[in-house]
Amino acid sequence: MAAPLKIAIAGLGTVGAGVLKLLAANQALISARCGREIKVTAVSARDKGKDRGVSLDGLRWFDKAVDLAKEADADVIVELIGGSDGDAKAVVEAALARKRHVVTANKALLAHHGVALAKTAEAAGVSLAFEAAVAGGIPIVKALREGLAGNAISRITGILNGTCNYILSTMRATGRDFADVLKEAQDLGYAEADPSFDIDGVDAAHKLALLTSVAFGTPVDIETVHVEGIRHVSSIDIKYADEFGYRIKLLGVAERLANGAIMQRVYPCLITPASPLAAVEGVFNAVLAEGDFVGRSMYEGRGAGAGPTASAVVSDLMDIAGGRRVPTFGIPAASLRTLPAAPLDQHVGEYYVRLLVADRPGVFADVAGAFRDEAVSMESVLQRGRNADAKVNVVIITHEAPEPAVLRALKRLQANAALQEPPHMMRIENQK
Amino acid sequence: MAAPLKIAIAGLGTVGAGVLKLLAANQALISARCGREIKVTAVSARDKGKDRGVSLDGLRWFDKAVDLAKEADADVIVELIGGSDGDAKAVVEAALARKRHVVTANKALLAHHGVALAKTAEAAGVSLAFEAAVAGGIPIVKALREGLAGNAISRITGILNGTCNYILSTMRATGRDFADVLKEAQDLGYAEADPSFDIDGVDAAHKLALLTSVAFGTPVDIETVHVEGIRHVSSIDIKYADEFGYRIKLLGVAERLANGAIMQRVYPCLITPASPLAAVEGVFNAVLAEGDFVGRSMYEGRGAGAGPTASAVVSDLMDIAGGRRVPTFGIPAASLRTLPAAPLDQHVGEYYVRLLVADRPGVFADVAGAFRDEAVSMESVLQRGRNADAKVNVVIITHEAPEPAVLRALKRLQANAALQEPPHMMRIENQK
Repeated sequence: MAAPLKIAIAGLGTVGAGVLKLLAANQALISARCGREIKVTAVSARDKGKDRGVSLDGLRWFDKAVDLAKEADADVIVELIGGSDGDAKAVVEAALARKRHVVTANKALLAHHGVALAKTAEAAGVSLAFEAAVAGGIPIVKALREGLAGNAISRITGILNGTCNYILSTMRATGRDFADVLKEAQDLGYAEADPSFDIDGVDAAHKLALLTSVAFGTPVDIETVHVEGIRHVSSIDIKYADEFGYRIKLLGVAERLANGAIMQRVYPCLITPASPLAAVEGVFNAVLAEGDFVGRSMYEGRGAGAGPTASAVVSDLMDIAGGRRVPTFGIPAASLRTLPAAPLDQHVGEYYVRLLVADRPGVFADVAGAFRDEAVSMESVLQRGRNADAKVNVVIITHEAPEPAVLRALKRLQANAALQEPPHMMRIENQK
Repeated sequence: MAAPLKIAIAGLGTVGAGVLKLLAANQALISARCGREIKVTAVSARDKGKDRGVSLDGLRWFDKAVDLAKEADADVIVELIGGSDGDAKAVVEAALARKRHVVTANKALLAHHGVALAKTAEAAGVSLAFEAAVAGGIPIVKALREGLAGNAISRITGILNGTCNYILSTMRATGRDFADVLKEAQDLGYAEADPSFDIDGVDAAHKLALLTSVAFGTPVDIETVHVEGIRHVSSIDIKYADEFGYRIKLLGVAERLANGAIMQRVYPCLITPASPLAAVEGVFNAVLAEGDFVGRSMYEGRGAGAGPTASAVVSDLMDIAGGRRVPTFGIPAASLRTLPAAPLDQHVGEYYVRLLVADRPGVFADVAGAFRDEAVSMESVLQRGRNADAKVNVVIITHEAPEPAVLRALKRLQANAALQEPPHMMRIENQK
């Protein structure tokens, strides 16, 4: 059997401790599958004394992560600190400077500095692997980079943030409001104390930008991702979506348009229950990939948590142990080719619009007229009941229409005195 | 850029022609991702003149596949002939004898001779890769062998035969009978003229046996797979299953029992709509894998056809082109370790039983008594309406019970004069 693969881990939070546990629990199986042992030699974290439920005996301790990256006796540095800059970036740069392989779960770091780091890694002849950064335990990076590598990919659609999916699933199941369910998710540990990265769509955008790069061979481009979060999704929208036969999900979509441009978007949207993504509930993630030969394929699993993320980290380590190498983004970083970025105003699709209007004669004609004047045709309209205060919700599903036309129609409506609040709009994604 | 990877293809049916088309269509993309070209140098098939919609110009033609394996100027021999023995086996053996890599879509060959061939390949230092043999375009072999490699797998559950899934989905959607839908599937090209390999579960068993080996590190063991096909599934069973809230699917299940034994079974069974497999319809395949750290993950896609199968073949070729090697079954074939095989009489689960009985007093008490006498408790019972000829269906869902107890209860009932035909029984698989 070959010499052990020596690894040093920077960051012993939930995921770091999970990696130690996995490597200990499945040591024999991992050695059999790799043909060599994977051996942790050093670790670093903020608090040496903290009980992590796992022994650190025999491991060299570093108070400073950067010192670990610079000095640890290791073939691979595992970066599990997080954050797009600061210590995490310094650790990865120091490791690559020493020509050490790097395995990371850090989507923010790679979304912002991935191409530069990949170039450094490739120049050094080492791997920079990030399976754990996207969709937790689902081996989606491997699937795209290797399993579907013979295909030209046309579209990637993902439920990429378990916190948002948990909140939206629970809102639908219980009819409760966003704020209430968010609070519960925080109490359960499914959402951070500061949840903005998750609920504002930033985390999903980071992950989407990485998948886009792998799928389309483009440099990671987080700047052109259109991002909307789920704060504005109300239980009433979920209820109306249900009545029209849709679910509301936060999706990340990366698509190559007919004009060759790439559109990246993250937003809450309506999807049909016929979509395989519709049944993905709670903290699960899923990614739907469409390729020219394979057709549609879908990958589903737990998107976060110690076990699934550790599974992905160890998968990368086992590839390195087995001498299997793929460029970070599927093709050498220097060969990634920029394609035009399509802004959302090139989007054509169906739209859900909810308007709270004064319940008086002529309002409905105004609404219909605003859409007609922008050549947006309506597929369904729902107006039911009446509020005690004479306000009613009018809900419209449009036929396919260009985004700018829909936005102009909404602007016309906003000028109408009958409107009691700004229009609520969500896109409909019809991936079958 | 490195020298091209030269390949020779034995067998130019749907899949072989699909591989040629894919390599031609996506040549630039494949070269960019591999760092080298994948170049077809030779082909072989029965009929040189046949129009396959793809040019064979510049390719050396072999009338005999074995000659191609022995003589073609190629680094990789791609075997797409099919069948567990005969030409396919001779081709693979000849290629390995020359120390050429082999890529195959042949589940029957590997289910029967996989371990011996893998040992030969590993001794020769070449790859024997078979992503295309299981679940078409879904990179499930890669997912198990690499993506989830850090996990101890406890269970694999798959919809592994698109023909059966198409037939069962269509029977449910239309209420039509098995024979009628099979005929249609044959007319549409979804089922072979001789459909027995598919509908009797043999094809699914081959695929399951391969996944079992990869998941559990055991030698491929097709002999101990319990196999039942779908010929006996009637539209009335599908209707009753629906009423109880279940779908009927042909599943392959490989499971490590608490006693350490491996149980492999292929049969039509009832699954709850809450299972992610329930929504997998038509010719799609899906595999659910459960690992100790990753938890549940699912992989879904087209299970057959030129495009998806070619996608899988080319994925294997690209791994070889990139110098990425994994033993055929995840660990070296010589290290595969036999575990006890659990027969189906160790199965404990819920059962669906339908009895066509004479509609007269006391029959129901007899039915209930037979189950009670074997300590099988009933969860639900349905008896509704009456046939014109005074025969009625009694449908029972049991609580969890050992298979032998259920079989004994059915045997008791079979002796009862009120029974108009042998009992209909299917297992319920409760994978959530």
